[in-house]
Amino acid sequence: MDRYLVVSSDGHAGLPAAEYRSYVDPAFRELFDKALPIQVQLTKQAEQRFLVAEINAEWRRGREYELTGAWDPDARDKVLDADGVAAEVLFPDGITEMNAPPFGAGFSMSPTGVTADLQWAGCMAHNRWMAEFVQTSPARRIGLACIPALWDVPRAVEGVRWARENGLRGVVLPPIWEHHEPYHHPRYDPLWAVCQDLDMVVHFHSGPAPHKDYFGPIPPPPDHEIPPGAMGAYVTEVHLWLVRPLTFMLWGGAFERYPKLKVAMTEGTAIWVPEYLQLLDQRYSETHYSQKLGDYRSHLSMSPADYFRRNVRVGASCMPRREAELRHEIGVANLMWGTDYPHPEGSWPHTREQQLETFSGLPEPEISAMLGGNAVEFYGLDPGKLNPIAARIGPEKSLFV
Amino acid sequence: MDRYLVVSSDGHAGLPAAEYRSYVDPAFRELFDKALPIQVQLTKQAEQRFLVAEINAEWRRGREYELTGAWDPDARDKVLDADGVAAEVLFPDGITEMNAPPFGAGFSMSPTGVTADLQWAGCMAHNRWMAEFVQTSPARRIGLACIPALWDVPRAVEGVRWARENGLRGVVLPPIWEHHEPYHHPRYDPLWAVCQDLDMVVHFHSGPAPHKDYFGPIPPPPDHEIPPGAMGAYVTEVHLWLVRPLTFMLWGGAFERYPKLKVAMTEGTAIWVPEYLQLLDQRYSETHYSQKLGDYRSHLSMSPADYFRRNVRVGASCMPRREAELRHEIGVANLMWGTDYPHPEGSWPHTREQQLETFSGLPEPEISAMLGGNAVEFYGLDPGKLNPIAARIGPEKSLFV
Repeated sequence: MDRYLVVSSDGHAGLPAAEYRSYVDPAFRELFDKALPIQVQLTKQAEQRFLVAEINAEWRRGREYELTGAWDPDARDKVLDADGVAAEVLFPDGITEMNAPPFGAGFSMSPTGVTADLQWAGCMAHNRWMAEFVQTSPARRIGLACIPALWDVPRAVEGVRWARENGLRGVVLPPIWEHHEPYHHPRYDPLWAVCQDLDMVVHFHSGPAPHKDYFGPIPPPPDHEIPPGAMGAYVTEVHLWLVRPLTFMLWGGAFERYPKLKVAMTEGTAIWVPEYLQLLDQRYSETHYSQKLGDYRSHLSMSPADYFRRNVRVGASCMPRREAELRHEIGVANLMWGTDYPHPEGSWPHTREQQLETFSGLPEPEISAMLGGNAVEFYGLDPGKLNPIAARIGPEKSLFV
Repeated sequence: MDRYLVVSSDGHAGLPAAEYRSYVDPAFRELFDKALPIQVQLTKQAEQRFLVAEINAEWRRGREYELTGAWDPDARDKVLDADGVAAEVLFPDGITEMNAPPFGAGFSMSPTGVTADLQWAGCMAHNRWMAEFVQTSPARRIGLACIPALWDVPRAVEGVRWARENGLRGVVLPPIWEHHEPYHHPRYDPLWAVCQDLDMVVHFHSGPAPHKDYFGPIPPPPDHEIPPGAMGAYVTEVHLWLVRPLTFMLWGGAFERYPKLKVAMTEGTAIWVPEYLQLLDQRYSETHYSQKLGDYRSHLSMSPADYFRRNVRVGASCMPRREAELRHEIGVANLMWGTDYPHPEGSWPHTREQQLETFSGLPEPEISAMLGGNAVEFYGLDPGKLNPIAARIGPEKSLFV
């Protein structure tokens, strides 16, 4: 084939907030109606707080139709075709397109200020819609279910089964556990077991953080001023909150007990990986430093860095050239390129230029792996269905020489 | 001089718990008497929990006299002489020698489960003792005051003034703020101002972390089992909790408004520095990624990485060879070697062998800077007093060729 098969490891999709209503369990629709205006208001406030509304407005201008691809299957396929993307992993969406799922469902699934039943209702509304959305083009859409796993693990296990039976291929878990147990706790073992057994990839997506640390009380008191540097500290630390759940899973032995469990770490850059692997190896080695801390290694048959290499992939959204240069330290087999469509920080609509900037001159098999091959293998995608699409729309290999 | 002048950036000193009594403000002595047995019991529990009591017992065997250097000036000077250390920075001590200051004072100064008045009483007891201890050998002892700055900034300012007037040369601040404001908040400006004006170096020391995340509820319920991997996750993340306060200070503009403010980051390794500086530079640069987050840079006249290079030093305890090899990426001028005496993970009593392993073959001026010269400059030490000591006990330069 003279074109690359491209899979985006990071796409976002969700209904405009009000349209989730018909997907919400009828028992929660009255609450949905009450919560909707509050959610819309909070999302607008967040746009003011975290994003710059004018920049978003400018970003949307002239792209109104393409951005409806966040929920419209025809618009989305047109965007994917023009962008050269054969298939994509579908996370929920959020602030930018004003289409976060109800009741605090989404990437964050913060367990604060909401009940378990409500958060499950919000997640299941999204999951039902996502299952339908995937069916509009099953070969191209790798749909993920939101699973608020912190509350009740047996219920999370049922949620994973439901998702698999309804055509979804993985789950998004909350990366911040707040007052719940972190992911080294054995209580999550049934969740890891079902994800391994049904080959459902576990995803953590960057973004959630203890926002109060940076921006102060939420909602802010009337005279509140956000301290200078809040956003700088947030963007400097945001990948750390993504990595924490993995650190706990690795040391807790999740991949020792469930050796086929798969985890994707998405949109947190890949730049931290080499240092992280070295640190894990160092902490796993017997050292003078750690002797006094007792035995914290013997329950693992190999270094946490080795589980990473075997079980973990990095969803490298808008992967910069520097990460491609570090690909051997990160692991060529561990990198899955992504667009982050439809977000303004993503590569769309300049995907081709960005791909060329990142990958030009690298060996073809490595480009092929990072742009799509790794994702095909990790998600068990069907090349027989994707190759014809790639042959039509994929980026020409000759451009990258 | 044919020997190196060695300054340890990481020494620990404190009285055996019961002996702090006479240094506690009389108004708090009754509470001290009540709290002492609880503190001793909790320290023993912590030794069981975090450390291995048998390893500590073995470590102490045959070194009983040398370990009294934690509080005894004569024993300490003998240890320093034998170790080739001319001068050292003195942090409080803790679990290993059962000599943490009262009322939760120490590195952590957690604001949970204690009142501001009590924590100040504990800190001031330690600070009074430390001021006396420094006077037993003023040229060799760089004493630090514990300042529980989270509660009340004007009181912290007074504490810094007291410390300076009583011969101390820097302060230790709590690295974990819990429910208080992080260090980007302008409320801390008077603290940065007084530290700059009195040339008091601000210190953060590794160790504190949200222990509940790793080990579960403290104290643990009767049937509690610590999840496997708790200690592995803790040692993998511990440097992150050390770095957080600096991230907030850098972005908040502390070094923009107080350009002579000095910060030392101690015993958290130096291995994270190159990646951290690159990340700060990247986040400070105008990028596609951060455009939608608005202006979070214009209050800083240079990159946070540049403030780091100018204002921050790393207390590199038991510095390994790999950090020496990375010295140009870390910054030769930013590295201050340290022993961590009297802790079992420290270099004592094998300091000479470890120094040779780390520094052999490097250019003499660079070894000289990292082993002592950088600390002499940062703390404003008197070479006229230290050179004669170094000429007597310092490691011979010829050994490192």
